Amino acid sequence: MPLVTGGEVTYAALDYAASAPALQRVWDDVAAYAPYYGSVHRGAGYLSQLSTDLFESSRATVAEFLGCRESDQVVFTRSTTDSLNLLAAALPAGCQVFVFETEHHASLLPWRDAEVTFLDAPRTPAQAVETLERALAARDPSPGSRLRSSRGGPNGPALVCVTGASNVTGELWPVKELAAAAHAHGARIVLDAAQLAPHHPLDIAELDVDWIAFSGHKLYAPFGSGVLAGRADWLQSAEPYLAGGGASRTVARRADGGVDVEWHTTAARHEAGSPNVIGVYSIASACKALTEAGFDSLVEREQALVTKVLEGLAGVGAVRVLSLFGDDAPRVGVISFVVEGWNSSHFAAALSAEYGIGVRDGLFCAHPLVRTLLGSEPQEPGECGAPEAEPGERSLNAIRVSFGAGTPDEHVERFLRAVRELVEDGAKWDYRTEEGRCVPAV
Amino acid sequence: MPLVTGGEVTYAALDYAASAPALQRVWDDVAAYAPYYGSVHRGAGYLSQLSTDLFESSRATVAEFLGCRESDQVVFTRSTTDSLNLLAAALPAGCQVFVFETEHHASLLPWRDAEVTFLDAPRTPAQAVETLERALAARDPSPGSRLRSSRGGPNGPALVCVTGASNVTGELWPVKELAAAAHAHGARIVLDAAQLAPHHPLDIAELDVDWIAFSGHKLYAPFGSGVLAGRADWLQSAEPYLAGGGASRTVARRADGGVDVEWHTTAARHEAGSPNVIGVYSIASACKALTEAGFDSLVEREQALVTKVLEGLAGVGAVRVLSLFGDDAPRVGVISFVVEGWNSSHFAAALSAEYGIGVRDGLFCAHPLVRTLLGSEPQEPGECGAPEAEPGERSLNAIRVSFGAGTPDEHVERFLRAVRELVEDGAKWDYRTEEGRCVPAV
Repeated sequence: MPLVTGGEVTYAALDYAASAPALQRVWDDVAAYAPYYGSVHRGAGYLSQLSTDLFESSRATVAEFLGCRESDQVVFTRSTTDSLNLLAAALPAGCQVFVFETEHHASLLPWRDAEVTFLDAPRTPAQAVETLERALAARDPSPGSRLRSSRGGPNGPALVCVTGASNVTGELWPVKELAAAAHAHGARIVLDAAQLAPHHPLDIAELDVDWIAFSGHKLYAPFGSGVLAGRADWLQSAEPYLAGGGASRTVARRADGGVDVEWHTTAARHEAGSPNVIGVYSIASACKALTEAGFDSLVEREQALVTKVLEGLAGVGAVRVLSLFGDDAPRVGVISFVVEGWNSSHFAAALSAEYGIGVRDGLFCAHPLVRTLLGSEPQEPGECGAPEAEPGERSLNAIRVSFGAGTPDEHVERFLRAVRELVEDGAKWDYRTEEGRCVPAV
Repeated sequence: MPLVTGGEVTYAALDYAASAPALQRVWDDVAAYAPYYGSVHRGAGYLSQLSTDLFESSRATVAEFLGCRESDQVVFTRSTTDSLNLLAAALPAGCQVFVFETEHHASLLPWRDAEVTFLDAPRTPAQAVETLERALAARDPSPGSRLRSSRGGPNGPALVCVTGASNVTGELWPVKELAAAAHAHGARIVLDAAQLAPHHPLDIAELDVDWIAFSGHKLYAPFGSGVLAGRADWLQSAEPYLAGGGASRTVARRADGGVDVEWHTTAARHEAGSPNVIGVYSIASACKALTEAGFDSLVEREQALVTKVLEGLAGVGAVRVLSLFGDDAPRVGVISFVVEGWNSSHFAAALSAEYGIGVRDGLFCAHPLVRTLLGSEPQEPGECGAPEAEPGERSLNAIRVSFGAGTPDEHVERFLRAVRELVEDGAKWDYRTEEGRCVPAV
């Protein structure tokens, strides 16, 4: 990419938490499949059958990647957002939902038909478990009560939705402990693994969660598919997510003029329309690539980069790294920070224009969390172009750097050098707001 | 692909109506963009901005391709099914829906929260208009009535959903006339263009329909995206289709513990989650390719193939081509038929295994229509492996051959030769049912 200061540089994609580049293996697999693309489930032709096999074996690959139990279903969606909206649409009547205010909007908002309890931001993993315990205990029947429900716990069905790794701080949440707390109180739990799955091996049975949701595009497979995997019962008895072909087994006009529909009870129930075969295959390809490359060694390398970035940022006095659980909390390669005296949008624009580094600035679709971390009030995002915060004032936005498999050391080193130089010497160029984004004032 | 009778042959993809192969131009564009993939809307980096521009300019390309009016919105979905489900979720309260029983399940079934009137199969285009007129007239207020509603017609909002070209017979529906009838009675109309858009230039303003829905994967762009384009008002005031990031403008915790959300009113309102940039770009690429190749000349060539197939099939006595509007009705390159004395699944399997031709057999996600055309009762799909229908009996399934841009003459010629040979000489191989599909009994 061209630099505003002249010359060109290889782009350093350090915005994995928004969308990760495709693994070479994923591109290669997609390109190799391309000439053989065909409709699935419905064609008599050779390529249709090949595509159907590819589609269903991708389902099996994803199930294996997640350590699914035999009774689990893997439903293909378009994204984590879509997966959680599907689960929200499948909640049994009267289901209560418990979610921390620190979640991504995709976990925070889909529960529109349920009674939602928003839980305050905890400041340690242990506090997260305590907070959840307390909230769930409030719905337990008093001792001696014989109140029972056929589904869920003694007080009827409940669902906890929790992230595995924060999309803002990268911090790991105590998923196994939260799952145990949920189950102890008769609630179920869904893991938003959008930020965890690309950075950490997952095992649904070992974590003992009821569902896992994640997106292809953060797992190095940016072809428009996502996954909801887990318990089949609620999904099987829910209304189909989309109504249409593929989900309907038989459709017949009734004598009274209406229409009778019999819906599938397999994953197809929620996959109406022609499936995104390429999107689904690309996810399976990424799962295989991560497993075959040795996921543990990828984690180890990523953790070395995390340490390097945290140490590098710690050496710049004006930088404050955001953390909910404290500086020593384990995290994946997702790190947000603010720079004293800098507008975060301005800083991020300079990283791109002057150093060829792509990060993200803003509130990261987790407004309540970022405001909690910044100690700021709800408000519109600030204009860029000039430092918004005087030294000592609080910033209104943050900057997020994120990385993972395939990130070269050089990208991280360039990033740390850029932060130091921008803080010490200032930006070399002027920036202004154009169509809502901060760009070089060329 | 390998033939069951020995040797290999180039696959003849004659199942465009299910899913069309990608145009070379589409693959080339996707492959060229691949190394520049980045998240849209949210990143400060160069590639994010490039991807955002690509995403939004794709929206403009699609709007131009459809002849959208200035006030129309183009919302990206995953498919036609998804587009129609989105519109169904956006219907104003009390909306009545009118749909012919001859529609694809994706048009027939999404209206779950509305009062739906299913219209009987018409046997001419004029009868379709009359049937709709009559149904809509029944909701008009009696003369002198002053009953008015703020939305829609005098009797409140109504929507007509109609296909542009049948996915079974390929026959063209009188869209413009149906739109005029709808509007004359204060109803709106959505065009299911899944089968029309790939085969015919469209102009939303000239057709005077309120919305158009279509899928990328039938328009030579099989990357998991679809389109709903048209009037913004119902969409803007509806609850967001998916709840999550991207659709939410601001989210804030309230003092009482709840959460306040302000949603976008642009297309983003219904596009929560990270958009499928590659899917969307591939649709725009296909739109451009069709336009630049001269869509009219593509139509002309396809119509020559339609004539060739119909004439060829007419020369085989055992073949009956299915038609709702009569043999002379104009149609796109989608033709369904049955062969006297043959199980359709068996016939389709032989076309693939012995000739390398991919077609589709079944009820084509339009069960009521196909049963009407076959004159059969609702029932389970038949087993394959042996002729299900004795000479003179009615078949329970049909065979569909479909084609479009890029279909070589040779594929169509091979298909016609195969039909003749199978009818005259029988299949050379035995077939059996395996996992629900008919395959060579090797």
